[in-house]
Amino acid sequence: MNKFVLSINAGSSSLKFQLILMPDESCIMSGLFEGKRTALTKFKVNTKQNHKFEVNGGWDFSAAVDFLMQYLKEEKIIQSVDEIYCVGHRVAHGGEEYSQPVMITEQVKNSILSLSKLAPIHNPINLLCIEAFEDRLPGVPQVAVFDTAFHQTLPQEQYLYPLPYTLYEEYGIRKFGFHGTSHQYVNSVVEKQCSPIESKRIISCHLGSGASICAIEDGKSVATTMGYTPLAGLMMGTRCGDIDPSLPLYLAQNTPMSINDVSNMMNNASGLLGVSELSDDCRVLQRASEQGDERAALALRMFANKVKETIGRYCSVLDGLDTLVFTGGIGENSAYIRQQVLDSLSYLGIRYCEASNEQNHSVLSQPDSQIKVLIVNTDEELMIARETVRVLSHQSEPNNSN
Amino acid sequence: MNKFVLSINAGSSSLKFQLILMPDESCIMSGLFEGKRTALTKFKVNTKQNHKFEVNGGWDFSAAVDFLMQYLKEEKIIQSVDEIYCVGHRVAHGGEEYSQPVMITEQVKNSILSLSKLAPIHNPINLLCIEAFEDRLPGVPQVAVFDTAFHQTLPQEQYLYPLPYTLYEEYGIRKFGFHGTSHQYVNSVVEKQCSPIESKRIISCHLGSGASICAIEDGKSVATTMGYTPLAGLMMGTRCGDIDPSLPLYLAQNTPMSINDVSNMMNNASGLLGVSELSDDCRVLQRASEQGDERAALALRMFANKVKETIGRYCSVLDGLDTLVFTGGIGENSAYIRQQVLDSLSYLGIRYCEASNEQNHSVLSQPDSQIKVLIVNTDEELMIARETVRVLSHQSEPNNSN
Repeated sequence: MNKFVLSINAGSSSLKFQLILMPDESCIMSGLFEGKRTALTKFKVNTKQNHKFEVNGGWDFSAAVDFLMQYLKEEKIIQSVDEIYCVGHRVAHGGEEYSQPVMITEQVKNSILSLSKLAPIHNPINLLCIEAFEDRLPGVPQVAVFDTAFHQTLPQEQYLYPLPYTLYEEYGIRKFGFHGTSHQYVNSVVEKQCSPIESKRIISCHLGSGASICAIEDGKSVATTMGYTPLAGLMMGTRCGDIDPSLPLYLAQNTPMSINDVSNMMNNASGLLGVSELSDDCRVLQRASEQGDERAALALRMFANKVKETIGRYCSVLDGLDTLVFTGGIGENSAYIRQQVLDSLSYLGIRYCEASNEQNHSVLSQPDSQIKVLIVNTDEELMIARETVRVLSHQSEPNNSN
Repeated sequence: MNKFVLSINAGSSSLKFQLILMPDESCIMSGLFEGKRTALTKFKVNTKQNHKFEVNGGWDFSAAVDFLMQYLKEEKIIQSVDEIYCVGHRVAHGGEEYSQPVMITEQVKNSILSLSKLAPIHNPINLLCIEAFEDRLPGVPQVAVFDTAFHQTLPQEQYLYPLPYTLYEEYGIRKFGFHGTSHQYVNSVVEKQCSPIESKRIISCHLGSGASICAIEDGKSVATTMGYTPLAGLMMGTRCGDIDPSLPLYLAQNTPMSINDVSNMMNNASGLLGVSELSDDCRVLQRASEQGDERAALALRMFANKVKETIGRYCSVLDGLDTLVFTGGIGENSAYIRQQVLDSLSYLGIRYCEASNEQNHSVLSQPDSQIKVLIVNTDEELMIARETVRVLSHQSEPNNSN
C-alpha cells in the first residue's frame, strides 16, 4: 500500500523537506525554508509547479511546520493529515549510541538532547522540529535518522585518535564522521546502477559548503574525513579542515585571538573564503580565477588538491577502488574541480570523458577506465524516507530481533 | 685533496657526530652523547672499535665538544686540530629565509637565534654547539645545514594552510616540514642506486620516534607531512600527528587541562605511548602484541595505517610512484610495520619479498614489482658533510652566482 512519508532535513538555518510516496519513492512535494531577515520559501509540487513565498521578518522552525501543514491541506496535496504515515528526521549526532535509525520515544528525545554537547547547534534544532510535529500530528510515528550512524561501522583503528586512550574512555573523544545520510544514499545508488564487483570498493566525495569523503567497502563506511566535529578533514567553504594541531593553541597564545576567536576563525573564516579573501562559493572563485585573480585560483587548487589526496589515501585503505562518486553542490556541478581532481589520478587507471564532465553527466568514466567515475545527485530526504519506513516495518513485525 | 669534516647533529637531549674524510665519504669516527643522569658516550673508530664511557652526573653540549676534541687528539685520530677542514651543523629551523645551507656568520647566528621562536628547543642548542666550536676551533669555517631547507621547494598550495591568508602574511603561519636532511639523503641514495626513471617519483618514509613522509619529484620535495611544527602529520612515538583541529581547543575548554597541558599531552603523551599506555617503542609493543596485549596491537595497527594512507595520498600528489623507501629506526628495523604497510598496497603493483623484509635487506621489491621498495639506512651526518663541503667549494669560487 502506498504511504505518504514526510522527510525533514533541518540545518542550522534552513529546513528542507520532501513529501514522498513510498514504496514508489515518488516525490509529491519538496521545499525549503531559508534566509535570515526575509524567509524565502520554495515549494515544488509533483516537480511541475514552483511556488515561492517571501515573508518579511524571517521564520522559525515551529512556524515553518505550521505553514507546511496548512499548505498541504489548502492545496489539497493531502486530503487529511491522517494520510501522513510517518515523519522521518535527519538528526545530526547520534554519538556511539545509535548505529541505526530509531523510532522516536521520550527516551530517544532525551538522548538527542544529551548528545547536544557534541552538536550544540544542530541537535537542539532537530529536537525542536520533532516536538513541533508531535504537536501538529499527534499519534503519527516519527523516526530519527542519525547523520553519524552510517560511520558506526568504522574499525577502531579509524575512529580512535592517537591521543591518550583515557580521553576516549573518560570524554568519549573519537571520530564520528558526518554526512552519513548522503554517503549511504550514494552507496545505494551505486549498488543499484552498477554490478556487485563495481560496488565493492567505493569512494564517495560529498563536496558542498561542508565537505567530506567516505571510503565504503561492501556497503559499510570504513573511513571518513570528518572527525569528532565537522571541522575536520577536507578544506571547505569556510572551514579549514585538518591543519597542524599545534596551530589552534599557538594562535590562541601568540595572537590577540582568544580560544573562541580561533575556533570561530577555523569554522567561519577559513577554507575557500580564508585563502581567497573573496568568497566561499566555488562559482564566484572560478569566475574570478578566469579573470586573473591568483588567490581565487590558489584557493580552488588547494581545495581540489585535498580531495585528490584523500582519494589516494582511501585507495590505500580499500587496497584499490572500483567506483568513485562526486556528490553535493560542488561535486555535482563543478566540472572545473572534478577535472582538477581527475587529471592527476591517471595512475589509478582512471580514464574520463571531458565532454561528459563539462556537462555534469552521471557517468564520467570512459568504458576502458579501470575505475567507474559517477556523479550522483544526493537525495538525503529520500534516504531519510527509506530508513524511516524500514524502521517502522521492523517495528510492526513482532519478535523481530533487528 | 682529502679533508676532515666534522658533522654535528644535536637534538634536544643528544649529540651525534661523525668525523668524515671527504670526498671519500669514509667515516673515520662516529659517536653519540646521550642520557640524562648518566651520560652514555659511544665512540666507534674506523668502524672497528667501540668505546663506551659512562659519566655520572650527565653532560652538557659544551663539555661534549671538549671531550670530543680531547679524544681526537689523545687517540691520535688527528695529529692537530688544524687538520679539521670545516664543521657542519644540522640546524633545526631555517624558516623561509634558508632554502640552502650557508656559511655561518654573525648574521646567520642572529637569524638562527631569531628563528628560535619556531623551534624553541632545538635552535638554541644548535647555536650553543656552533659557539662551542667557534671557541675550540677558531678560524675553522662552519656551515649550517637546515632541516627545513629541503622542503622550501614545496609549491604554495602545499605549504599554505586553508586558514585566513593574513595569518601567513602577519605571522608567517605555513608548513615548513622537517627531517629534510634525511629525506635529501634518501633521495641521493635512490639517485645513485636506481635508474633515472626509477628515481623520478620517490616517497621517503622516515619512521623513527619522530616520523614524517616526503613526496619527492625530480629530486625536489613536493609534499611532506610535518607542518608549522614537528607535531603534525603521522602518529609518532609520543606525538599525535594530525587530529581534528577542534580537539586541542575543546580539550583546553572542557577538561581540567590548560593550553600548555594539552600541548604537552599532544607532544609527549600521545602516539604509540598514548594508545598503548605501555611504551613509545615499537619493539616493546610488538613483543607485547605477540603476547596478546590488544592495545599494543591496536597502537601498531594505527601507526602502520597512517603510513599506508600517506603513501596512497602522496601517490596522488605524484600521479604515481617509482620508488618507495623506508628509513629511520622503525623504517629500517621493523619488518612488522613494513609488512603491515606493504600488504595493503598491492593495488599499486607492489610485490615484495617477505624473506627480504624479515631480514631488513636493502631491496624489498620483487623484480616484477611495478614500484621499487627499498630500505635506506639514513645518514644525516654524511649529508651534512656533503652539504658543508658544497657550500665551502662555492665560497672559494669567485663570481659563482649559486
